[in-house]
Amino acid sequence: MNEHTIAPADVTRVTCIGAGVIGGGWIAHFLARGYHVTAWDPASDTESKLHRLIEAAWPALTELGLAEGASRENLTIAPTLEEAVSSAQFVQESAPETLELKQDLLARIDAATPADVVVSSSTSGYGMTEMQAHCPTPQRLVVGHPFNPPYLIPLVEVVGGEKTEHRAVRWASEFFEIAGKSVITMDREVPGFIANRLQEAIWREALHMVANGEATPAQIDTSITEGPGLRWPLLGPCLTFHLAGGEGGMAHMLDHFGPSLKSPWTRLEAPELTDDLRDRMVQGCEEAADGRSIADLVSDRDRAIIDVMRAIDGVRRGDS
Amino acid sequence: MNEHTIAPADVTRVTCIGAGVIGGGWIAHFLARGYHVTAWDPASDTESKLHRLIEAAWPALTELGLAEGASRENLTIAPTLEEAVSSAQFVQESAPETLELKQDLLARIDAATPADVVVSSSTSGYGMTEMQAHCPTPQRLVVGHPFNPPYLIPLVEVVGGEKTEHRAVRWASEFFEIAGKSVITMDREVPGFIANRLQEAIWREALHMVANGEATPAQIDTSITEGPGLRWPLLGPCLTFHLAGGEGGMAHMLDHFGPSLKSPWTRLEAPELTDDLRDRMVQGCEEAADGRSIADLVSDRDRAIIDVMRAIDGVRRGDS
Repeated sequence: MNEHTIAPADVTRVTCIGAGVIGGGWIAHFLARGYHVTAWDPASDTESKLHRLIEAAWPALTELGLAEGASRENLTIAPTLEEAVSSAQFVQESAPETLELKQDLLARIDAATPADVVVSSSTSGYGMTEMQAHCPTPQRLVVGHPFNPPYLIPLVEVVGGEKTEHRAVRWASEFFEIAGKSVITMDREVPGFIANRLQEAIWREALHMVANGEATPAQIDTSITEGPGLRWPLLGPCLTFHLAGGEGGMAHMLDHFGPSLKSPWTRLEAPELTDDLRDRMVQGCEEAADGRSIADLVSDRDRAIIDVMRAIDGVRRGDS
Repeated sequence: MNEHTIAPADVTRVTCIGAGVIGGGWIAHFLARGYHVTAWDPASDTESKLHRLIEAAWPALTELGLAEGASRENLTIAPTLEEAVSSAQFVQESAPETLELKQDLLARIDAATPADVVVSSSTSGYGMTEMQAHCPTPQRLVVGHPFNPPYLIPLVEVVGGEKTEHRAVRWASEFFEIAGKSVITMDREVPGFIANRLQEAIWREALHMVANGEATPAQIDTSITEGPGLRWPLLGPCLTFHLAGGEGGMAHMLDHFGPSLKSPWTRLEAPELTDDLRDRMVQGCEEAADGRSIADLVSDRDRAIIDVMRAIDGVRRGDS
C-alpha cells in the first residue's frame, strides 16, 4: 500500500480467495453489504457450492437488512487467482489452515495484487509474521480473523505481522468497520488471537473433564447454555465478574475473591494477582462499562437474559 | 431423610437460610414458583434488603410467568435459624463462602431440621464432603449450586458428598426440576463443579492476557459478546465444535484438527487425545445433538444468532 491507497469508505470491489465455509461466508457478507465480489477457488465445484451457500444465507441477510444495491448478482467467479486479484481494492484470503499452503498462496496473491491494496488472511491459527515470509511486499498483509458464520457473527480480529506497516492494520480495521463488522485491533501477535484463546481454554478444560469421567459432553454443553452462556452475549467475562463484586465492582471482586484464583477450579494455572494486574483489571472494567453503573449493568443483564432465553426458546420450539 | 420423606412434587414450603444476593435470588425464585418461603439471615436489615431485591425482580418474574398462587406475601422472616427450619420441607443454604462458617451453619441446620428433609447448599467453592464434616445426619446434605441471578438463570448443579445418600441427590434433582430449574446431576465431586471450571478457565486465560499486555478487559469482553458468546446460549462448546467439523461432525473435527490441541492457543495444557477420549466426545455429541442433523443444528444456530443479536441490540438501545 502507498499514498495512492483507496480510502476504506470508497471500496466497492472485494476479492475473496478461497470459497469454502469461511470464504463463502465472507462472500455472502460482502454481497449483503453491497460490494461487488470476485471469488476464486481451485475446487471444480466452486460455483455450485458457493451458490448453495449464498442461497441458504440470503434470507437471514435480507431479514437483517441488505445494504443499498446489495445483490447476489454482484458475484463474479474468476478463472485464475491472478485475474481475481488484478483489479481488487481489498483481498480476503480464506484457504485451508496449512502453513505452507498459506505462505505460497499469500506470496502469489501479493505478487499479483496492485501494490496499494491491503491483503487480509482469515487464518485462525497462524501469525502473519510466519505467513508473510515469502511475500515480496509483506507490509500490506494483515490477519482479519472472522468467526463462523462470517455473515452473522460480527467479530473480526485484526493484527499485523512483524513486516506489516501499521497503516495497513489501521486501514483494514477501518474497512471492516465500514463493512459492518465489530473489529478488535490487536497491538501484537498472540497465538490464537483473543477469542480463540478463551474458547480454547474452555475447550481444553471440557476435554479434561470428559477424559477424567467428571462430566459428559451433554452436561458440559448444558452447563453453558443454561448457565453463563445466557449472560455472555451482553456481558463478557470481565464485566460479568465486575457485577460479581456487587457495588464494589471489579476492585471488590479481586480484593476479596482474589485468593480463590488459587483454587483448583480448572487445570489452568492462574497468573500472580499483582497490584499492576489488579489495577489494569479495575481500570479496564471501568473503560468497558463506559459510564454504566453497576445498577445499570444489572438491569441490562436481567433484561438481556430474559430476551435471550425467549429467543432461544423460540428457536428450540421451531418458531420461524 | 427416610421413608417418610415428602415427594418432591408435594413440597409447598421452602426454607432459605441466608438472604444476600444469592439467597435473596433463590427466595424470589421460589416465591414466583408458588412456594411459601421462610427466610432467616443474621443481618439486622434483612427484611428491607430482601423486599427491595424481590420488588426489583418481580416485574421480570411476572413477565416470565408466575406459578398459580405465587405471591410476594408468601414470605415469612423467621426470628431464629431453628424456627426457620423446624417445619421446612426443603432447605437451601446461601451463606458467605467461608468453609468454617458453612460447616458450622450446616451442622446447626442439620440438627434443627426434621430428619426426612433434604438440605442443599448454594456453595460455589466447597465440596459437600468437607462441608458436612460436623453434621449429625450428613446423608441428607447436597450441593445445589445456582448461578446469579438465581431467579433468572436456570442452571443448578447438584452433587453429594461422601456421606450423602444417593437418594438425597436424586430427590434434590427432582425437586429442582419441578421448581423450574435446569438440573445437572453430577456423579462425583469436582472442585468448581462444571460451569465454574469452564468459566474459570476463560477467566484465568483472560487475566494472563491482561497481565501480559496482550489484550485489555474491554477487548476480551468484546471478543466474547461479538463472537462466540452469540453462539453459546444455544450450543455449548461441544456442539459448537461438532459443527466446526462440517458434515463429519465431532469425529472429523477431532481426527483432523486434533493436532491443533498442541498449539499454544491458551496457557491450559491439553489432555492426550486418546482413542477413548475421542470416542467419548463423538458419542457424547451424538447424545447432545439428540437426533438433530448437522444441517438442523446449523439452521437453528443461525436463527438463534440473529434472534440473540436482536435481543441484545434491543437491550443496548434501551427498548423495554
